[in-house]
Amino acid sequence: MRMVDLIIKKRSGLALNDEEIRWMIRGFTDGSIPDYQMSAMLMAIYFQGMTEQETSVMTDAVEHSGDTVDLSPIKGVKVDKHSTGGVGDKTTLVIVPIVAACGLKVAKMSGRGLGHTGGTVDKLESIPGFQTDMDEEEFFETVNRTGLCVIGQSKNLTPADKLMYALRDVTGTIDSIPLIAVSIMGKKLAAGNDVILLDVTCGSGAFMKKLEDAVALAKEMTSIGERAGKRTAALITDMDQPLGYAIGNNLEVIEAVEVLKGGGPADLKEVCLALASDMMYLAGIGSLEECRVRAQEVITDGSAFEKLLEMTRAQGGDAEYLKDTSKFAKAPFVMEVTADRSGFLMHMNAQECGTASSMLGAGREKKESSLDLTAGIVLSKKTGDTVQKGEVLARLYSSKEELLEPAAKRFLGAIEIGAEQPKARKEVLARVEAGKVDYYID
Amino acid sequence: MRMVDLIIKKRSGLALNDEEIRWMIRGFTDGSIPDYQMSAMLMAIYFQGMTEQETSVMTDAVEHSGDTVDLSPIKGVKVDKHSTGGVGDKTTLVIVPIVAACGLKVAKMSGRGLGHTGGTVDKLESIPGFQTDMDEEEFFETVNRTGLCVIGQSKNLTPADKLMYALRDVTGTIDSIPLIAVSIMGKKLAAGNDVILLDVTCGSGAFMKKLEDAVALAKEMTSIGERAGKRTAALITDMDQPLGYAIGNNLEVIEAVEVLKGGGPADLKEVCLALASDMMYLAGIGSLEECRVRAQEVITDGSAFEKLLEMTRAQGGDAEYLKDTSKFAKAPFVMEVTADRSGFLMHMNAQECGTASSMLGAGREKKESSLDLTAGIVLSKKTGDTVQKGEVLARLYSSKEELLEPAAKRFLGAIEIGAEQPKARKEVLARVEAGKVDYYID
Repeated sequence: MRMVDLIIKKRSGLALNDEEIRWMIRGFTDGSIPDYQMSAMLMAIYFQGMTEQETSVMTDAVEHSGDTVDLSPIKGVKVDKHSTGGVGDKTTLVIVPIVAACGLKVAKMSGRGLGHTGGTVDKLESIPGFQTDMDEEEFFETVNRTGLCVIGQSKNLTPADKLMYALRDVTGTIDSIPLIAVSIMGKKLAAGNDVILLDVTCGSGAFMKKLEDAVALAKEMTSIGERAGKRTAALITDMDQPLGYAIGNNLEVIEAVEVLKGGGPADLKEVCLALASDMMYLAGIGSLEECRVRAQEVITDGSAFEKLLEMTRAQGGDAEYLKDTSKFAKAPFVMEVTADRSGFLMHMNAQECGTASSMLGAGREKKESSLDLTAGIVLSKKTGDTVQKGEVLARLYSSKEELLEPAAKRFLGAIEIGAEQPKARKEVLARVEAGKVDYYID
Repeated sequence: MRMVDLIIKKRSGLALNDEEIRWMIRGFTDGSIPDYQMSAMLMAIYFQGMTEQETSVMTDAVEHSGDTVDLSPIKGVKVDKHSTGGVGDKTTLVIVPIVAACGLKVAKMSGRGLGHTGGTVDKLESIPGFQTDMDEEEFFETVNRTGLCVIGQSKNLTPADKLMYALRDVTGTIDSIPLIAVSIMGKKLAAGNDVILLDVTCGSGAFMKKLEDAVALAKEMTSIGERAGKRTAALITDMDQPLGYAIGNNLEVIEAVEVLKGGGPADLKEVCLALASDMMYLAGIGSLEECRVRAQEVITDGSAFEKLLEMTRAQGGDAEYLKDTSKFAKAPFVMEVTADRSGFLMHMNAQECGTASSMLGAGREKKESSLDLTAGIVLSKKTGDTVQKGEVLARLYSSKEELLEPAAKRFLGAIEIGAEQPKARKEVLARVEAGKVDYYID
């Protein structure tokens, strides 16, 4: 088999067969297929797409390109959730305790933040003492005992994806729906859960800017999951503005705790309830409506919050910070950003808000950068709110005073104030399962 | 400037600006832009094409990526011809003496053969003593004195093209019309002639299998030439079967000599006259019809053949071999390939004939391979001829007896004998100049 022949085949609009795809992923991973051939193939895939069979087989090849996790030592239904990324997206911190309180098992591996998006591992580490490094035996034991555990990735999972993503990043082949689907689902399948719920974000802070693209990606990913024998569904959620009010590591932990205590921003709570109840539904606990009632119950009766405390203690964290969030360290420098005119907050570019937060020290530009766990933004206004000239739009937090001014400028550039009140947005836009799309919007 | 941004721009269907193209070719040539980014760009160009402005600027950047030839020390109009490749294509050996006999200057750099196509330099070197290595000063002096000289490429011309072609070859991006045009025209412009006639071959032995593709390539190349201020035209010539009867190095020299002596195969003579007279026309010698008459005259009066002898002597070759071609070494092993049925010779796959000749030792599979200058094929029948069962279709020549059998098998696979007489084919199918296409076929 010659890689050039496979490139020409794909370029000409033909589908690669199973053997060709497995040979290609194996050769690319072991270095026998050079980057310059793989990048030409990726660009050909960008233009010609892939069939369902091709994406399934490529996902399987990526899944098995390195270690995989065998969760069978954990008893019960193991559920996973994956978000395609957003700003102020602290849903994992809320959902994991809810579903664990409802009896499901969550053995979750999460990532760190990069660019304008935060990472769950960074957020958890803003709880003093919290450890996300754990060996597999302890990880399984913890989940069996407590029902939940969130750690960083330790094993050599999906090296093919790491290599391919790095190559796509520099060759203009990131935004191909089948390639995104293969990348995400390869990792998800390697993580070994029974149920996968995908949170496909959509809007200015998301990778998918348009609903139709988000739906296409959701269809592609759920199809791969189902063909791999996993119960899989996707919710398309709004990420046209930041989720909730808080952006930044310990600021987001505080807001997540508010939701688990029965309060918190309405949009965040809605997305968390929708995701948590859907995971429970997919796990076979009951109808979507019944699961929603259960999820609300474990918030109201405090058992979900108890699960967060239990997880925190099990992972070495100081749970007192969660009981009294005023204990969290606060950034020494704060700047209020105010409106330069009156009107409606028409639009808020979520990606730019995330970048502003990152500029304050909450995110990393490069993998090596260190984080300011107290830095970030707390919004006072969200899209659709009325604003008076001089009113506070947001408070910016940082440990370095000189970072406030440029971040404020960036943040203000993301805000549009005008005369017309924008249409209210739904938090959950659609649901995809088994090739069927239910839209929750007009 | 970042290469990934240029890739995304091109991938999205936008045109790159002049500065971006020059930066890209410079960076690729000096190694600062890696192959994996360039191959993604080439695949994006394959799908999105390039504007006239883009191909012009890229050609100019390729032309100036290394040395260029300044032919100004040569007096008179310097004319060049380039063929996109074929089998049995010995036209250069005929045309160069014709136009030189008519007063034009030919300072030609030619290549060696690779794969199924032969190279002029190899063919000339089958004349005992003939040298194609020459320094620039001697090259210019020879052309000024005799009017013609054909050498191998000595300077470091268009390194960007060499790198890019090697990359295209292994990444499935060879057959992109703008990239082919840039590659050919970059080299032609670097060679410094005033007039460029392109012989765009078309059919089973050519790179362009379909007339519409050949015309598109001819338009693209002539447009680049004109925009670079050169008088440029293209003839689309038939390469659906080998040109003439002889394939192989000294076999083709013998056939070229026959044409210059007033004989030779009709198709070869026709193509040579069309090309030679068009070069003269582009050089301003007269109308196409007048030039055709002049070209025929210099054959008839022997002055074109005299020019070939003069060139051969000037380059160290033994001209006696040309005067009496029976002196040429003959391959020790000959095999007659006969027809297995009676009928019409319906089709002859020219590329397969070229490959069979190469298998006999006449061509190289790799750049390093050595050649058998006596090896090759002499056809007895051509497309449209009647064939009796057992009649000789061709004679195969080689210095190694064991090569005959497999080559014969390959050759026979290229021949189709059937009941229906195929339509006679024109040798010259169309002419392209200044965006205008004249078709010579129905």
